[in-house]
Amino acid sequence: MKTAILIIQCPDQKGIVAAVSDFLFVNKGNILEIDQHVDQAMGMFFMRAAWELESFALAKEEIGTVFWEKVGKDFRMEYNLHFNSPKPKMALFVSKLSHCLFDILSRYYSGQFEVEIPLVISNHLDLKEVVDNFGIPFHHIPTSNANKAEAEKKQLDLLKSHDVDFIVLARYMQILSGDFIQHYPNQIINIHHSFLPAFVGAKPYHAAYERGVKIIGATAHYVTEVLDAGPIIEQDVARVRHHNSVSDLVQMGQDVEKVVLSKAIRYHLGRKIFPFGNKTVIFY
Amino acid sequence: MKTAILIIQCPDQKGIVAAVSDFLFVNKGNILEIDQHVDQAMGMFFMRAAWELESFALAKEEIGTVFWEKVGKDFRMEYNLHFNSPKPKMALFVSKLSHCLFDILSRYYSGQFEVEIPLVISNHLDLKEVVDNFGIPFHHIPTSNANKAEAEKKQLDLLKSHDVDFIVLARYMQILSGDFIQHYPNQIINIHHSFLPAFVGAKPYHAAYERGVKIIGATAHYVTEVLDAGPIIEQDVARVRHHNSVSDLVQMGQDVEKVVLSKAIRYHLGRKIFPFGNKTVIFY
Amino acid sequence: MKTAILIIQCPDQKGIVAAVSDFLFVNKGNILEIDQHVDQAMGMFFMRAAWELESFALAKEEIGTVFWEKVGKDFRMEYNLHFNSPKPKMALFVSKLSHCLFDILSRYYSGQFEVEIPLVISNHLDLKEVVDNFGIPFHHIPTSNANKAEAEKKQLDLLKSHDVDFIVLARYMQILSGDFIQHYPNQIINIHHSFLPAFVGAKPYHAAYERGVKIIGATAHYVTEVLDAGPIIEQDVARVRHHNSVSDLVQMGQDVEKVVLSKAIRYHLGRKIFPFGNKTVIFY
Amino acid sequence: MKTAILIIQCPDQKGIVAAVSDFLFVNKGNILEIDQHVDQAMGMFFMRAAWELESFALAKEEIGTVFWEKVGKDFRMEYNLHFNSPKPKMALFVSKLSHCLFDILSRYYSGQFEVEIPLVISNHLDLKEVVDNFGIPFHHIPTSNANKAEAEKKQLDLLKSHDVDFIVLARYMQILSGDFIQHYPNQIINIHHSFLPAFVGAKPYHAAYERGVKIIGATAHYVTEVLDAGPIIEQDVARVRHHNSVSDLVQMGQDVEKVVLSKAIRYHLGRKIFPFGNKTVIFY
Repeated sequence: MKTAILIIQCPDQKGIVAAVSDFLFVNKGNILEIDQHVDQAMGMFFMRAAWELESFALAKEEIGTVFWEKVGKDFRMEYNLHFNSPKPKMALFVSKLSHCLFDILSRYYSGQFEVEIPLVISNHLDLKEVVDNFGIPFHHIPTSNANKAEAEKKQLDLLKSHDVDFIVLARYMQILSGDFIQHYPNQIINIHHSFLPAFVGAKPYHAAYERGVKIIGATAHYVTEVLDAGPIIEQDVARVRHHNSVSDLVQMGQDVEKVVLSKAIRYHLGRKIFPFGNKTVIFY
Repeated sequence: MKTAILIIQCPDQKGIVAAVSDFLFVNKGNILEIDQHVDQAMGMFFMRAAWELESFALAKEEIGTVFWEKVGKDFRMEYNLHFNSPKPKMALFVSKLSHCLFDILSRYYSGQFEVEIPLVISNHLDLKEVVDNFGIPFHHIPTSNANKAEAEKKQLDLLKSHDVDFIVLARYMQILSGDFIQHYPNQIINIHHSFLPAFVGAKPYHAAYERGVKIIGATAHYVTEVLDAGPIIEQDVARVRHHNSVSDLVQMGQDVEKVVLSKAIRYHLGRKIFPFGNKTVIFY
Repeated sequence: MKTAILIIQCPDQKGIVAAVSDFLFVNKGNILEIDQHVDQAMGMFFMRAAWELESFALAKEEIGTVFWEKVGKDFRMEYNLHFNSPKPKMALFVSKLSHCLFDILSRYYSGQFEVEIPLVISNHLDLKEVVDNFGIPFHHIPTSNANKAEAEKKQLDLLKSHDVDFIVLARYMQILSGDFIQHYPNQIINIHHSFLPAFVGAKPYHAAYERGVKIIGATAHYVTEVLDAGPIIEQDVARVRHHNSVSDLVQMGQDVEKVVLSKAIRYHLGRKIFPFGNKTVIFY
Repeated sequence: MKTAILIIQCPDQKGIVAAVSDFLFVNKGNILEIDQHVDQAMGMFFMRAAWELESFALAKEEIGTVFWEKVGKDFRMEYNLHFNSPKPKMALFVSKLSHCLFDILSRYYSGQFEVEIPLVISNHLDLKEVVDNFGIPFHHIPTSNANKAEAEKKQLDLLKSHDVDFIVLARYMQILSGDFIQHYPNQIINIHHSFLPAFVGAKPYHAAYERGVKIIGATAHYVTEVLDAGPIIEQDVARVRHHNSVSDLVQMGQDVEKVVLSKAIRYHLGRKIFPFGNKTVIFY
């Protein structure tokens, strides 16, 4: 089934839902999903509508223009229009840890993600074989503080040449430069292995162990220039006890990380996430 | 703030959201919340809209009629209109266990529930003092299989004389007759102390212990004539281990029961639950 | 059933379990529960044993001395001996919020806690009626930065005159002085309304809302001189979404707070918690 | 580090812990973990002790005999002695669904499981490539009601020829015969895609959808002759809502299934599970 998804964000005022739903109705859109949210504190309106394209009165190419003229302009909307075909292109960045990579690739394998993965980039060779087995091109770009600018240039060239839409850092242990991030605003998803904002930075499981917490967690978020401080997409936790060592925490935490990261990817692919300020509205 | 809530249920077709949101817009309704759901399998549409009454163009009394003429009739809608004033009236039925009763009354005390509690009915005297301390009339109606019809008659008379809107069985250990239930269809909330449909009937914690489950649960549901089989409103669980005795399970389970039951009451009070068939749509 | 509980902490070495279990065996102790833990990183051994007193070969009064001579001395043990009678004495400190107070008192009412509550102390009068209804003496001691020393003096006098064993801060919104805390080391339990170490200090629900977290939490911990940094006893969480306001977070969080605090009290009453350094070993 | 694990089960009586811990102490065993449990209702004692082999006074071969003479005989113990080398051998049975298989193999790949996987058996060819990529022999044994006895004969021959210790049914959709099961009592782990005992049998996600539950689950259990009724090892759950379709439930449930199954494997590998009657004691 061919579908369209319309994503809207604008200052709140009366009549928005009526205007958008009327636009879809008069053009014979068969609505599949419709969600809206008003952030009262910020006076912002958010809406997501998905409908069938087949019976729709407007051609795919003209929907955007007509919508802007009839509805968007009056409400000063920021909007995006997405179609479920062609599939978006996702790049994976990995280092040495395999658990998130396997989780993502096994979902990709079974068709759970509506996505293409044109390439995997890593600063190490450890996971090359895993990626090869899934028939995905693996690019080894060693990265150090010394060659960072150069390495990121290579990465960006690869990403651009493959028309990559968004990037998933599947336990990629390098910090991206602000310059790099600006090429993909709110299009880089990272998994941090703690329950943010607790334990920002390196070695969060060690920090959790030292603090004696009874619950550990993981956080998927969009990458911004401030480390581990971008808009949170998804979090989950696991209960730990006094007899759990740091390596137990690592292992138990990895089970949380991979589920949280894959959920974030699913929401992103479904165009269900609205980042605004440092938060996210998510219609799941 | 005075608010109205409109609850709609009808066969799905194009244009419903547009029609309802347009009705609210042209009458200058400031929408506070709007949610809708289509059950694709059953072809049913569900919608809930809440808006401010103050600035609304229609008087409270005429909203229903105008809505039916302009919108409801065409779509063959079942709808209900609620106002947040006066508060709905809730009756509590209890037996001997105090945990759910205390949880509900302490929320009532702190103003968390927008409700009136005109009376508590019990087949035992154990909890009279608790109820007295909250200044709520306590009615003792002993119940047995022998006097059930007579007892239910007394209960119904009391409920009707207090204009009770809905009933919460806060671990009331008696089974209500089909006749009684028909007076309050989808208006009687029960808490069952298991993760339904596992462990229907009496002594579910004992049954859970015998089966050796690793997780126990509780289920709030609307009461229907089939025991423990009505539409489920809310469920939650707690993890147990081999060293937990039946009485541990009872204690751990009670913590789940009271939270689950109070959530169900909150959803019911917010007019957020749509029972249909043997299921519920809940906009929370 | 009269029972004894022995709590042991000492540097780890071979033979401790054998020595302690042999001591219980030769004195005809019927062991009910026995747990031990070795913190490998710190080289510390922890043990808790509970047994029936009735058939025990040693009189209640001599157990401690004999144990020290036969076992404790050789292993340089710190140990404590507890009996389930008389019940320990718990003081509650409250301010204006009733949810934790109600939860604790309703468990006390139903006999879930093996404890006496000789008094409740508050810096406000709001909850006096609630406490009165449970037949517990309520002491109003207004507290400000100006009169803090004097107020704490009054509190300590009351606590001492009632032989209070431990204190529960049930959303008592005042910070206790280091001097006060030293009178009850690891005997003051606080509930902090965040998932520590995230959101230390005042208004954690506001901070959680601002950060856009997807999960909120609560933490019960022993009070030390460093704010919200004492040994964590118990934590739990609740899932929140973008449409939840700060006041939703407060309400959802309160459900977590009361369950977490009551669990911490239960563990403390069961002599199941070993604070060491800034962490806890808990045998539950 | 070479370690030994002793697993004990016997009627409860005084002195067992003392006798076992003394045995380990006099033979200079450096205890790593020791856990015990008394099932009061059944009067049964369970114990698990792990210690370092290197400094132990008894040779690996004589531990069992000496233990029986000195301790086991007097207490009529059933006991098992395990060493962490050589690794146990695990066979996987799969059909068409890949999520549990990938999860297990990715943990195996990263060294999380101390196990050998000499073979995977499937009644379909779908997952052959996945298994091949991990370098594990894949055996295709088509199974139908008609050829079941013959197919099971082939399976058993393969298992025996590879000295398989235990079997994991990773969403193997066939029911094993009682005869087959008797070859591996409490050595066959199945993952059932519901929160047992709810939704026994086929299509549990459909049944959960029809019943309108708000939480779904998965259950790992040992296989016995009664379908889905063997001793439960581990369970977990996921929250669902009214807008989740059956296929959503399947997808959300698979995330639970794979984590639950892998936990069960980890406990089994750690010799942490004591099946007794229809329940399990698990020291985790």
